[in-house]
Amino acid sequence: MFRGVIPPLCTPLTDDGEVDTASLERLCGFLLDAGVHGLFVCGSTGEVSQLTDQARATAVRTVVGTAAGQVPVLAGAIDTATERVLAHARAAQALGADAVVATAPFYVGVTAPEVRAHYRRLAAALDVPLVAYDIPANVGRKLPVEVLAELAHDAAIGAVKDSSGDLESFQRLLDATRGTGVDCLTGSENLADLALLRGAHGVVPGLGNVDPHGYLRLHRAARAGDWAAARDEQRRLVRLFAITTVADPARVGPISAALGAFKTALVLRGVIDRPHTLPPLLPLTGAETERIAAHLATAGLLPDARAQAEAETPS
Amino acid sequence: MFRGVIPPLCTPLTDDGEVDTASLERLCGFLLDAGVHGLFVCGSTGEVSQLTDQARATAVRTVVGTAAGQVPVLAGAIDTATERVLAHARAAQALGADAVVATAPFYVGVTAPEVRAHYRRLAAALDVPLVAYDIPANVGRKLPVEVLAELAHDAAIGAVKDSSGDLESFQRLLDATRGTGVDCLTGSENLADLALLRGAHGVVPGLGNVDPHGYLRLHRAARAGDWAAARDEQRRLVRLFAITTVADPARVGPISAALGAFKTALVLRGVIDRPHTLPPLLPLTGAETERIAAHLATAGLLPDARAQAEAETPS
Amino acid sequence: MFRGVIPPLCTPLTDDGEVDTASLERLCGFLLDAGVHGLFVCGSTGEVSQLTDQARATAVRTVVGTAAGQVPVLAGAIDTATERVLAHARAAQALGADAVVATAPFYVGVTAPEVRAHYRRLAAALDVPLVAYDIPANVGRKLPVEVLAELAHDAAIGAVKDSSGDLESFQRLLDATRGTGVDCLTGSENLADLALLRGAHGVVPGLGNVDPHGYLRLHRAARAGDWAAARDEQRRLVRLFAITTVADPARVGPISAALGAFKTALVLRGVIDRPHTLPPLLPLTGAETERIAAHLATAGLLPDARAQAEAETPS
Amino acid sequence: MFRGVIPPLCTPLTDDGEVDTASLERLCGFLLDAGVHGLFVCGSTGEVSQLTDQARATAVRTVVGTAAGQVPVLAGAIDTATERVLAHARAAQALGADAVVATAPFYVGVTAPEVRAHYRRLAAALDVPLVAYDIPANVGRKLPVEVLAELAHDAAIGAVKDSSGDLESFQRLLDATRGTGVDCLTGSENLADLALLRGAHGVVPGLGNVDPHGYLRLHRAARAGDWAAARDEQRRLVRLFAITTVADPARVGPISAALGAFKTALVLRGVIDRPHTLPPLLPLTGAETERIAAHLATAGLLPDARAQAEAETPS
Repeated sequence: MFRGVIPPLCTPLTDDGEVDTASLERLCGFLLDAGVHGLFVCGSTGEVSQLTDQARATAVRTVVGTAAGQVPVLAGAIDTATERVLAHARAAQALGADAVVATAPFYVGVTAPEVRAHYRRLAAALDVPLVAYDIPANVGRKLPVEVLAELAHDAAIGAVKDSSGDLESFQRLLDATRGTGVDCLTGSENLADLALLRGAHGVVPGLGNVDPHGYLRLHRAARAGDWAAARDEQRRLVRLFAITTVADPARVGPISAALGAFKTALVLRGVIDRPHTLPPLLPLTGAETERIAAHLATAGLLPDARAQAEAETPS
Repeated sequence: MFRGVIPPLCTPLTDDGEVDTASLERLCGFLLDAGVHGLFVCGSTGEVSQLTDQARATAVRTVVGTAAGQVPVLAGAIDTATERVLAHARAAQALGADAVVATAPFYVGVTAPEVRAHYRRLAAALDVPLVAYDIPANVGRKLPVEVLAELAHDAAIGAVKDSSGDLESFQRLLDATRGTGVDCLTGSENLADLALLRGAHGVVPGLGNVDPHGYLRLHRAARAGDWAAARDEQRRLVRLFAITTVADPARVGPISAALGAFKTALVLRGVIDRPHTLPPLLPLTGAETERIAAHLATAGLLPDARAQAEAETPS
Repeated sequence: MFRGVIPPLCTPLTDDGEVDTASLERLCGFLLDAGVHGLFVCGSTGEVSQLTDQARATAVRTVVGTAAGQVPVLAGAIDTATERVLAHARAAQALGADAVVATAPFYVGVTAPEVRAHYRRLAAALDVPLVAYDIPANVGRKLPVEVLAELAHDAAIGAVKDSSGDLESFQRLLDATRGTGVDCLTGSENLADLALLRGAHGVVPGLGNVDPHGYLRLHRAARAGDWAAARDEQRRLVRLFAITTVADPARVGPISAALGAFKTALVLRGVIDRPHTLPPLLPLTGAETERIAAHLATAGLLPDARAQAEAETPS
Repeated sequence: MFRGVIPPLCTPLTDDGEVDTASLERLCGFLLDAGVHGLFVCGSTGEVSQLTDQARATAVRTVVGTAAGQVPVLAGAIDTATERVLAHARAAQALGADAVVATAPFYVGVTAPEVRAHYRRLAAALDVPLVAYDIPANVGRKLPVEVLAELAHDAAIGAVKDSSGDLESFQRLLDATRGTGVDCLTGSENLADLALLRGAHGVVPGLGNVDPHGYLRLHRAARAGDWAAARDEQRRLVRLFAITTVADPARVGPISAALGAFKTALVLRGVIDRPHTLPPLLPLTGAETERIAAHLATAGLLPDARAQAEAETPS
């Protein structure tokens, strides 16, 4: 279920900060047309930590409805501790999500036995598969490979999504879960080819919202064992990923910069209507939007007329 | 409003993991009888990050009802980002809380301008005073003194609760907010006398659940300028704080150890019914409970009969 | 031996980057005249990590000669690992230092047993007392209180210098070493009164180079139990400590800023000849020097004529 | 000059803790016979931070003499700040090293401008090429890609050795230095094939002391574009790298564990005489040595007779 290219969806918003379901449907359609193998809603890229419970439900409902069984829908259940995560997970399950993605507890620090107890409680209470989400930059600690291996051998988890950027530990994870049927996904935009060379079963790149075709080409090359081709496609995507660093770091943090860039690019590509993000994330400026447009033009990702115009704009 | 000894309440639980309102009422009564100056519900010590929305509401309702206007009730509105915090804050306000306590956003990293935008949005939407809660161990970053000073001068916040343990920055905060009417509270159990010598307006010690009388004596000595007496009381409380380190750190984290110890001590003192905490926190063992009882006996905090029994138990 | 006010000496330099022994002698004389209880040469404030072995020897020789037995001379033996530290320590001992100050190993991470082995090897090889130097900002880890307590009980160390800024652990250290005869010193400039209220035996403030009289007044007030007076003197010194933050943090790091400020202030006060520091530290600008002069003028620490002139300078 | 497989040499020691030059010569011979492209003496793997100045000189002299111009010799000049680094660098240069390897300053924190000044001063004072050594685990900060790119474009450095394990930043480094002639080497034992796929010019693996033939096979496969073969060889080396984790982490740190394992393996392979390391590193136990032997036997790296014996030993 957890194989191939599974973009973590941006959550388009209206001017009032509500989920823009029409834009979200178009985004899903855009990705499905490109051929993605799954959709991940309410992940970090989906601003899950900024969305109210109601907005999360709207997003899951919309994506499940648009996917309509063509590909699996993974839903993030992101919150500080077990019962709160479980409330989100049950809601997503009831709305038709095919799997639930949960991090370790955060806000209060926990030991490995406490992480284990957390996932075991979640697994016992859910009917759909559980994906352990390793994102130390957000959670403040890394999921121990030993705990993940134990959970995998006991079939308490169905997959791991590794957004740590640490390929050494990813390799240890692959070795420790071999033969369990648990899939290992990487969340890295820029090391996707290398993760696949190591044996990753899937990739979950935020930039895949903007250029799903690129990640699908990369994935196909990797499946074919053509690592030089995969590397060259990755190199192109790394250049495109520069859209996430156009914003002034003194004003906005890396999350405002990255999510703002993805949404801005989706607006420029004609997929969604507005680039809004939710507080405390701050919007990008007009000049920053121009720079994103220039990167898209270079990558050949703008509609023709606009690409034309941009090509004439000095940036 | 934010002065004196304001314990961050433990949240007693039933065997089913629901809020034990009868025990919570007794805890409030115990603290009010001791003479505390305020009650802080749904703080980190109250396991706020483990409580569902329903449980949070029950806790706030119970404490507001029991306080009955005798002292101010502060309610934590702890969540990952602005709109989610606001939902909790509005609920607490509707339930009668006198002030709302909120951290910086967490899970996604934010810049100083984003922290500022977060608090400004909260302040604009609330009718009750807003307390900025600085707890870097949980949130992953420290509230910048410059941002707090600006918010204080604009009356966007009414107080700061500093649980960083960093007295140098606390001193800078006091200097930077002088004359604004903003109160500066320390969350430190063990440096309370020193924070008061620096000019803290109040103390918010988790251990104050267990020994409110000790913190009230400390506070009175400090108010009287008798720093040697305050120091000696503090020294006694530091010894009592050893109850938070009896648990095996290989099994449970410091939060399980501390909150479990507070609740166990409250059970042993006859204030609440059960020592339960919520997942992923793990319970203390019988041997650990014995060691807590021994510390309480040494501190003279056990009822006579039990103290008698404990004194005969080798520990 | 390790009690009272013991400034960590700046190391004045010539235009060629050599130790300016004449200025160093004048600095020692200035501090001895003020009444300090000891001198600490080749500490972090003395740029020990920038000094060649030859320069370190020159500095120790000069300070030992100038102290001439009036007060104890502590010499830093700062290097990455045991045998290298020992080489510096033996050199300092041979030059007449009364005690040697050493950190945990750095560059390679070490466990508590490895830290213990390090100090035991140093203690066994030296004739003068060993001071354990806890400076996690520079070394990357904190000295464990348990290891220090064990070393103290075995008389392997004579004192601990705590530059961690963490008063909670300092308190645990004081408790854990009580009765061993080991002295506990704080390296904090801004929390010196609080450390003394906790029971510190001495203070080692870099700012003591610039205003030794202030720290001596603070220490006398603390000895007399007049904590309000100590606090007020501390408050004055905190304001003076602002000289360490006048430099542009985008250009120079906090060490360039602080050590440059101390030396600049000593030049302005007429104690040493030049404000130079060694690479990679970068010099302060003229505008930054002006701001330091203004702070000194405010504090009444400039010679009269110069104070006069500065008072007329807009800053 | 900086291309291919360049092992960072272990420094064999006598029972007195002196450099065992006979063993070091044999180690060099073993590696040269295997076909390595360079030798790196006095790196972190060489315990440089534990070696006295005299020992460092002995090590450099021995390696230069044994290499006898067949391959380039890189010498680490590792110390806290610029002038101290320069003293080591000049000594190495005088002893015939072909290049000098230096980290950013450590012990005191530095800004990017201070790092730049450090390397510029070193480059200006040296005749041999300078290699910037990025090892954040030891130095406490990462070398900024912008600074390295600037130094590369100005020919102030000849190569970068990246031991950060961060392939994303390594990729940015490769992009930012393209066309400058500066070589980019990875210090990773376990991601060497991936670094080469990204474009690394060379690999500097500590495990290359133990199994140089494995890294040479990996490098040849990578040069031939056979990434599956490179990956399979890497997988074998990852399994062998398990020798670095046999030691009890409660007793010894990861450096004692890794360097002790390399030396123990070299003794077991008959290359050097003793497994000793220098304080504060602690020795491995007999049981740990047995486990290392078992790993070597599995990898087919023991002499026949011994392999035979080991195969019969339960481990």
